Amino acid sequence: MPDPSVDTLNTTDIAQRTINTIRGLAMDAVQVAESGHPGMPMGAAPMAYVLWTRHLTHNPEDPSWPDRDRFILSAGHGSMLLYALLHLTGYDLSMEAIKNFRQWNSPTPGHPENHLTPGVEVTTGPLGQGFANGVGMALAERYLATTFNTDDLSLVDHHTYGIVSDGDLMEGVSSEAASLAGHQGLGKLVYLYDDNEISIDGSTDLAFTEDVGQRFAAYDWHVQRVDDGTDLDAIDDALTRAKAETDRPSLITVSTHIGHGSPNKQDTAAAHGKPLGPDEVRRTKRNLGWPDDKSFYVPNEVYEHMGTARADGAAAQAAWEERRETYEARHPERAAMFDRWMEGTLPEGWDEGLPTFDVGDELATRAASGQTLDRLVPQTEGVLIGGSADLTGSNKTKADGQRIQQADQPGGSYVHFGVREHAMAGAANGIALHGGVRPYVGTFLIFSDYLRPSLRLAALSEAPVTYVFTHDSIGLGEDGPTHQPVEHLAMLRATPNMTVIRPADGPEVVQAWRAALHRTDGPTALVLTRQDLPVLERPNTGAEGLRRGAYVLSDDSGTPDVILIGTGSEVQHALGAAARLREDDGIDVRVVSMPSWELFETQPESYRHEVLPPSVTLRVSVEAGATTGWARYVGPDGRALGLDQFGASAPGSTNMKKYGFTAERVADAAREVTTQAA
Amino acid sequence: MPDPSVDTLNTTDIAQRTINTIRGLAMDAVQVAESGHPGMPMGAAPMAYVLWTRHLTHNPEDPSWPDRDRFILSAGHGSMLLYALLHLTGYDLSMEAIKNFRQWNSPTPGHPENHLTPGVEVTTGPLGQGFANGVGMALAERYLATTFNTDDLSLVDHHTYGIVSDGDLMEGVSSEAASLAGHQGLGKLVYLYDDNEISIDGSTDLAFTEDVGQRFAAYDWHVQRVDDGTDLDAIDDALTRAKAETDRPSLITVSTHIGHGSPNKQDTAAAHGKPLGPDEVRRTKRNLGWPDDKSFYVPNEVYEHMGTARADGAAAQAAWEERRETYEARHPERAAMFDRWMEGTLPEGWDEGLPTFDVGDELATRAASGQTLDRLVPQTEGVLIGGSADLTGSNKTKADGQRIQQADQPGGSYVHFGVREHAMAGAANGIALHGGVRPYVGTFLIFSDYLRPSLRLAALSEAPVTYVFTHDSIGLGEDGPTHQPVEHLAMLRATPNMTVIRPADGPEVVQAWRAALHRTDGPTALVLTRQDLPVLERPNTGAEGLRRGAYVLSDDSGTPDVILIGTGSEVQHALGAAARLREDDGIDVRVVSMPSWELFETQPESYRHEVLPPSVTLRVSVEAGATTGWARYVGPDGRALGLDQFGASAPGSTNMKKYGFTAERVADAAREVTTQAA
Repeated sequence: MPDPSVDTLNTTDIAQRTINTIRGLAMDAVQVAESGHPGMPMGAAPMAYVLWTRHLTHNPEDPSWPDRDRFILSAGHGSMLLYALLHLTGYDLSMEAIKNFRQWNSPTPGHPENHLTPGVEVTTGPLGQGFANGVGMALAERYLATTFNTDDLSLVDHHTYGIVSDGDLMEGVSSEAASLAGHQGLGKLVYLYDDNEISIDGSTDLAFTEDVGQRFAAYDWHVQRVDDGTDLDAIDDALTRAKAETDRPSLITVSTHIGHGSPNKQDTAAAHGKPLGPDEVRRTKRNLGWPDDKSFYVPNEVYEHMGTARADGAAAQAAWEERRETYEARHPERAAMFDRWMEGTLPEGWDEGLPTFDVGDELATRAASGQTLDRLVPQTEGVLIGGSADLTGSNKTKADGQRIQQADQPGGSYVHFGVREHAMAGAANGIALHGGVRPYVGTFLIFSDYLRPSLRLAALSEAPVTYVFTHDSIGLGEDGPTHQPVEHLAMLRATPNMTVIRPADGPEVVQAWRAALHRTDGPTALVLTRQDLPVLERPNTGAEGLRRGAYVLSDDSGTPDVILIGTGSEVQHALGAAARLREDDGIDVRVVSMPSWELFETQPESYRHEVLPPSVTLRVSVEAGATTGWARYVGPDGRALGLDQFGASAPGSTNMKKYGFTAERVADAAREVTTQAA
Repeated sequence: MPDPSVDTLNTTDIAQRTINTIRGLAMDAVQVAESGHPGMPMGAAPMAYVLWTRHLTHNPEDPSWPDRDRFILSAGHGSMLLYALLHLTGYDLSMEAIKNFRQWNSPTPGHPENHLTPGVEVTTGPLGQGFANGVGMALAERYLATTFNTDDLSLVDHHTYGIVSDGDLMEGVSSEAASLAGHQGLGKLVYLYDDNEISIDGSTDLAFTEDVGQRFAAYDWHVQRVDDGTDLDAIDDALTRAKAETDRPSLITVSTHIGHGSPNKQDTAAAHGKPLGPDEVRRTKRNLGWPDDKSFYVPNEVYEHMGTARADGAAAQAAWEERRETYEARHPERAAMFDRWMEGTLPEGWDEGLPTFDVGDELATRAASGQTLDRLVPQTEGVLIGGSADLTGSNKTKADGQRIQQADQPGGSYVHFGVREHAMAGAANGIALHGGVRPYVGTFLIFSDYLRPSLRLAALSEAPVTYVFTHDSIGLGEDGPTHQPVEHLAMLRATPNMTVIRPADGPEVVQAWRAALHRTDGPTALVLTRQDLPVLERPNTGAEGLRRGAYVLSDDSGTPDVILIGTGSEVQHALGAAARLREDDGIDVRVVSMPSWELFETQPESYRHEVLPPSVTLRVSVEAGATTGWARYVGPDGRALGLDQFGASAPGSTNMKKYGFTAERVADAAREVTTQAA
């Protein structure tokens, strides 16, 4: 039933009415919340409207339909734009939720969060992240399409669209991702650039005067410009041309006005991050020909108009389901594999026959990881997409026979990301959240710094990314303190929803990979050495204890006098110290290998107390990194051996000795805590 | 005395002989170290030779001469190139040091470190950092020149040169910095791009196929290309043209061959990061017409040729000293100010009359910081260069009346960095290490993630950068978990040589700024709230205790039963809890404000025990962030209240209550630890 007030409006065109509805919802939600970003949705509503009504293939009733187009609001502060679109097209996002914008427990947080809100593909807000996510999604789409589509049937054929802002394009991560996307020729990636010439500090003239179009042309993108961001047909045409260009990603620069329609705040930074104010909201509505006495106003015919997305989406999905059934009939095994991939299920036996190592062998944990990947990559059927930021040989991330992904060989599952750690991690989030495939990416542990923002978003957005962080301590040697991690384990461990695993030897590496691939609700960091480590003796146990985070590696009978706790390359010294202490001092020593605090903390208290009995307070931990946080495990009577300073350029074995990572020093520390307690 | 073997060489041209000397030193040092990167110095030696002999104004006998040109080896892995140049031109870097490349305690670490080696301007290796540092140096130079030069006399007039690599240009930070440099029109910034088409994974064709020249033209750089990287005159001409272009920074792409001269490894990734091998070193020397039976060979005439840098440098510096004396005679006050700036001394009374706040006032610590800067910026005469990554109003980093730095107003001391946190921090390192000025830069604490690599290098390179990190917890509210720091205090504290200060109220903010500006050997992070905080009652003390890291804010007589420790916005709740516990439970409570762990740890044990008596083991800490590391201060009998999960989008006060940052909860925790102990 049409709304009676319609006739009083200046605009009767349904497109314009829908656009004003979106603008009104954005203004009102921000106003009621007394917090938020009205300006971006008001300026970008027309382009979003054209994209969502004329190009985006999606099904509001099934946001997980695998072949939907992906839409990314990289300018995540404009979240009300996305929430308005989701609400109007019939996703499970009520008007109640819109009215509770930015409130406790509402699915409409200040910046979009994929894990909270149906239809939100990725978590955005920190600028540039969505841009990089989209590159990963387009890579995933192309790989899946190449893997599954047949001459006669396409199961995977969708676009990745995004709206990006000035701020996104200023961030380095988007430069990296754009260069990569251009190199990879991701023709199904289409970004609308909301060019409103305003950033928080004021006009972009203050800091951002580069020629964006020329820059993207240099990256080998297809670049277009729409001079009037309210010209729906021009936007439509540009999108059509962007889709017709299949060899290059597309950037469409659309000139817009932030706070479009606001008499006093349009084209000013004041429209960016604050409510317009009740009076200005009214003035703006009047100016737009919109009823100024209504809040959260959605004319019924706008619901009807936008609600066709449901029927359209259902039809599109039904057609796809039909294709999938035909596919299943013609290619039953591949159809089963497709289903497994989409469900995120690994094939039977994926972790059988993984490498074994003998006591007496010496190998770096990065090498053990490489050998493990040599089996895991083929045994998981290709569902793993790997890569490195130009450190493939050092990270050992490329499995034997794994093919490279390039524009002219889209079936490869290994990506040379270039020296672009941040874009790599941002793309990995996109790959993971696209679904169907699982990413793992490598760099040196020190360069986890370069990808921190994306790693954190992997954790927040529950993206199962595996990071292969090699060269994990001063043990890497001569490259020096610029390359030697110190605080990085602390930083990773302090990040919520990260699982950090620092295995002590080859057998633990195999278990670490098992744990990483079992995890589906967040990222895992594998922290690995450059230098060789001995395969440890395990008289009483296998390395399966890794999955519980910490386990007793060596013990005397009864309650120990002292517990030595180590991770990674330092567990060998805990064992060496135990041998000395038993022989020279005649005390009972337990050695605990503790590759993962997070896995340990999820164990029942009974297990934790079994491994680290509260009654045994004489404890020494040893780890070649900052001691931050170890007080929790060693307590005030214990001692945390670590490195709370920068390292030095010298051979790794020299460093380890100079900074005291030796069995002797661990034994001495155990003697000191014992003496102090006596 | 010329070396007798000279006549047997194919090359008699001194330039060529010098270039081969550099190549030989690089090959030999890496070979002896059995570690390092020979290929880059071998390819880039000609451009470096031309730059250092025909353009660079410097004085090897006084590496701290303020008006020297700055040279940055952004491709820090080619450190032997720099060490060879420093050695040959007569810096305090002996052949012994060259022979001890990458060894313990040698001033020739794997990657250049400014604090170790005379003549090394900045610490490089992590790619892209040097590129951004140079932008900061050029900004500092322009600001100083504008501030001090007069129509008749120039005290500051030098260039910033650098050699950058493929890897540097792939990193996002260099994209940000390049866009900023182009915007700022830094005409005295000149980079040579060592375009060898090889990265670690192999040919740059694998991942890096963008048009670099076009990209830099888009950033408004002056772009040139030298097709033959051994054509000394072409390189020379390009440098001359680059210097003639005064309105735009310059990029000169120089085509080179990695591992130049190596018969089997030139133009391959094998020449990048490993010794060539003894046989290949010999073959290469032979191929270059260089004696293959000598190691670390420097013909005497090469020493003589390159050694002219000393006389040239001394003459240049003497001419400058003469100008400075004339300047002093004509402008005595400005000359005195110039000397103060160069010495890093702040003027008398710089920290007098800083803001005071009254109990009962409520203001955010970011606001108190802004008010403090309103005084500090003028009172320090302009020596502070400030900026923000497009959050000026939020970070409160721009002082009243502070002028903006732009190409057409180079005398401003405030930089709008744009949404480019990483370039901002990289540039800040360059500003700090240029000397003469002191940088402070602002962004949200969450976006410390975006600048982590530069922040770490500030710490390693002892650069006194002050970070103004606002919006420091879930207290920022509605922007949600994408913007709410959790693990960031832990990350900052775990970083060696960082001082982290989280003040509790306005008076502590003033003291925090004092501490930051007193620090000259490393960076300081000021961690500030978005939300208002009460100015605390301090019956027995002023906020000066901040400089000791932690101090007793409120106490009962005698030894307390329980100690409550808070930082920042949570100190108020520790005080509130103390009041309840005293009144309701009748126990003796001490409240400790602990704004800085690092400052506290530098105090003598006696002070630390005075504040936190070891005998009082019932302790509760409260901080709206990860609890990582607090076990050290609360011990096993205590309790660390914090946030070990992501926050949520809701009003800040709601978040604080929902996550338990209230006086009630702190009091309850104190009761719990007391009960448990009983």
